[in-house]
Amino acid sequence: MAVLALDIGATKFAAGRVGADGRVSAVRRAPVPADGVWEACRALLLEVADGAPVAAVGIGSAGPVDVPAGVTGPLNIPQWRAGFPIVAAVDELFPDAAVRFAIDGACLALAEQYSGALRGLRNGLAMTVSSGIGGGILVDGRVVLGRSGNAGHIGHIVVPEWDVPCACGGVGCVEAVASGISSARWAREQGWRGGTGAELARDARAGDQIALAALERAGTALGRAISSAAALLDVDTVVVGGGFADSGEPLWAPMRAALARHAGLNFLRGLRVEQSRLAEGATLRGAAILAAGLPLPE
Amino acid sequence: MAVLALDIGATKFAAGRVGADGRVSAVRRAPVPADGVWEACRALLLEVADGAPVAAVGIGSAGPVDVPAGVTGPLNIPQWRAGFPIVAAVDELFPDAAVRFAIDGACLALAEQYSGALRGLRNGLAMTVSSGIGGGILVDGRVVLGRSGNAGHIGHIVVPEWDVPCACGGVGCVEAVASGISSARWAREQGWRGGTGAELARDARAGDQIALAALERAGTALGRAISSAAALLDVDTVVVGGGFADSGEPLWAPMRAALARHAGLNFLRGLRVEQSRLAEGATLRGAAILAAGLPLPE
Repeated sequence: MAVLALDIGATKFAAGRVGADGRVSAVRRAPVPADGVWEACRALLLEVADGAPVAAVGIGSAGPVDVPAGVTGPLNIPQWRAGFPIVAAVDELFPDAAVRFAIDGACLALAEQYSGALRGLRNGLAMTVSSGIGGGILVDGRVVLGRSGNAGHIGHIVVPEWDVPCACGGVGCVEAVASGISSARWAREQGWRGGTGAELARDARAGDQIALAALERAGTALGRAISSAAALLDVDTVVVGGGFADSGEPLWAPMRAALARHAGLNFLRGLRVEQSRLAEGATLRGAAILAAGLPLPE
Repeated sequence: MAVLALDIGATKFAAGRVGADGRVSAVRRAPVPADGVWEACRALLLEVADGAPVAAVGIGSAGPVDVPAGVTGPLNIPQWRAGFPIVAAVDELFPDAAVRFAIDGACLALAEQYSGALRGLRNGLAMTVSSGIGGGILVDGRVVLGRSGNAGHIGHIVVPEWDVPCACGGVGCVEAVASGISSARWAREQGWRGGTGAELARDARAGDQIALAALERAGTALGRAISSAAALLDVDTVVVGGGFADSGEPLWAPMRAALARHAGLNFLRGLRVEQSRLAEGATLRGAAILAAGLPLPE
């Protein structure tokens, strides 16, 4: 019997086979198309299952989600944004499988708890800073789910001093300021000629003034959001993954400066923010832990 | 055998006897003096114990705290700010008592969970808006404690657009903008002649333009902090108590407007923020629940 893990990202799917130890192998990836989103996801799952009977599927999805209803509605997948019944669809595809579903941030926190920077800790925050900004919360030894499975939405903490409209419908969210896409958009508005967050980081390292300013803006906003979350949650370890978090000192130095300025409470004095050592597959690894039904480490 | 509850507030102590049902009676209050803080607290506890042997004491304290160390360090009690070993002191006073200690916000959340607006819910946020701003978090059926017992510090979420230095050492915290003390301070800087948050609310209701502006500023900041916390925690019920929360529509209307502007995520659409129906003794009631060792409702 096969156990599968599925990661539904804003721009790509990943799926793989899960071993008894919760590790993932035979990983396949596919872009999320504009149309036929479920058909692409289904094809990827069938490719990974490769004809074997499927005992369990763990799904981590970009949010928001509605876990009690088994519905996902990622902001960045237009066809699914109003809600797609992912659990029912996977149930129908593999009728004998147990389907376990969580937001990607909770999967990330699980992965960091099992094999990353949160290992051995009872409290921490796992974040991804990429095309979007998301996260998952570990408190009192457990990954927090929240009422509808959406706990960890750190990307929608409102940050001073920016009043940027956000894809969520709100205004001033850190995701609308500090994600790779948001930072590149702002830089282009200032006259920068590049396209992606990765190009922005490259140009900043080469000394481009607009790119440096864009990363300073992003790092400052991230530091403010992290300071707010750490005060609210009483965590002292924050691990940040995702492609845009690879931008180096032009991003991390202003982030640390903002933390030093805002995180004044004595219980935050030892606050550590570090880069994730888990690679691209962290959410998939968390979905695998869900699928395998591994006991939570306490 | 007596069971006692103790509430350590920024400006006053409260203590009482706890019944088997967790209710508090024979409540006594005393101001927190500038010097001899423990002596005043000790005298109040002895008065409430009234010579009876003490089986348990539940303590809720203004924060920050260090629960694993049994130390409290309220920002607004100068003599204790660097840390006072409250658990050891109460242990010495009542050597046969079990001493249970938590931050006031966690006690507030417990009280709202047992007999207030969070009753029957598995997720919610309890806040107090008074001379300071604090809170407690209920997620996945449990009151969150955090690494050092300080979870729930919503007063130190950083809010746009104010860059006010905060007593915690940080900058821009909602407590430094929107508490009763902070709002009254700002109003006086604009030329208002009153003293307290209660007077500010009274003058706003009478149409004083500066007082109205002060409450609009406070309500807007509160709405932004609540929006950030609700997104991070995935809660849809927020209950707000404390004296300054009694300021009426001049505070609540801008708070609701800020929520409408910032809380855009679909899972926040039903977000309800309501005034606590628990009176002044809510923290003491939570400390009593701690002291009585009542099982958590699930």
